[in-house]
Amino acid sequence: MTTTEHVGRNGVDTATLFATIDAVRADTDLAKFQFRATNRWVAGTHNRSTIHDFHGAKQEMTHREPFTFDADHPPVLVGADNGPTPVEFLLHALAACLTAGIANVAAARGVTLTEVSSTVTGDIDLLGILGLSDEVRNGYQQLRVGFTLRGDDPEKLRSVVEQSRRRSAVFDVLTNGVPVSIDVDAG
Amino acid sequence: MTTTEHVGRNGVDTATLFATIDAVRADTDLAKFQFRATNRWVAGTHNRSTIHDFHGAKQEMTHREPFTFDADHPPVLVGADNGPTPVEFLLHALAACLTAGIANVAAARGVTLTEVSSTVTGDIDLLGILGLSDEVRNGYQQLRVGFTLRGDDPEKLRSVVEQSRRRSAVFDVLTNGVPVSIDVDAG
Repeated sequence: MTTTEHVGRNGVDTATLFATIDAVRADTDLAKFQFRATNRWVAGTHNRSTIHDFHGAKQEMTHREPFTFDADHPPVLVGADNGPTPVEFLLHALAACLTAGIANVAAARGVTLTEVSSTVTGDIDLLGILGLSDEVRNGYQQLRVGFTLRGDDPEKLRSVVEQSRRRSAVFDVLTNGVPVSIDVDAG
Repeated sequence: MTTTEHVGRNGVDTATLFATIDAVRADTDLAKFQFRATNRWVAGTHNRSTIHDFHGAKQEMTHREPFTFDADHPPVLVGADNGPTPVEFLLHALAACLTAGIANVAAARGVTLTEVSSTVTGDIDLLGILGLSDEVRNGYQQLRVGFTLRGDDPEKLRSVVEQSRRRSAVFDVLTNGVPVSIDVDAG
């Protein structure tokens, strides 16, 4: 049955996905979300974030549990390696966003996936953040994503990746930037 | 003793920090790093990244263990909530990078910290990624960071935050963007 096939294709509940899009089309305020993370310094370059509550669909919501993540520098960067560096989390965010989009787009199009794996690499010259050059930027010079997809026809798979890229929130933020304001309570 | 005070201030080994900066100044190739994440799709919007190896200081290195992170969508966004959303990891990365910088800058300046905590919020209108508007961007419209610092003189603490911002890799990437290339093996 078509319905049965589409509910659960690639693990995506396409019926609910389409119903959600219809609901948002009818009331666009449902699409206004605010995500949040709180962070606390532990010692040295080691600190920990908690991600739990967010606002969306006109209400306060929570993830099913508070997710906590440690970040640190490795010894070569004078840290204790209690977690990845902050910049490595950007690579995870990019891979995760594009991959979730691939799964959704493929399901919506009826494209079967058997594998989606990727490697993201980012080149960075630390002369910037170490304050040793004013010509080298602080952040990554370039990010590269290499995807391996298996399942349906290769041309269809490539088209799914392209559509995911066109609608990826993280890809947009990383390639186009976003305004960031910082307030300090140093009372 | 001055030396003892400075080694370990705020948990930062300032002697090693300064020695590292001197070593890099003498051989700038030591500053060329490449960070990496691998990701594998699990089901639906659920996928998992591993962060382990990287290149830096002219050699292949690894974190002391492979760090793995799940990402997913919450039920309201048709996922199973097996982890934060990809865009929430961007908030963690920003808080973590600025906080590590604050600890390092404060230690280098001999500024004492007793607390550094922060909340990062990001506003996003999902009309973009849902394909319901071509005028709404896919990513965050704006990020706000609120820091609370305690310890030394408030003016010194504010100045430390400002210097951390000026040398933050994640702040640079998020505010200025970075080129991203995507290759697909759909063989």
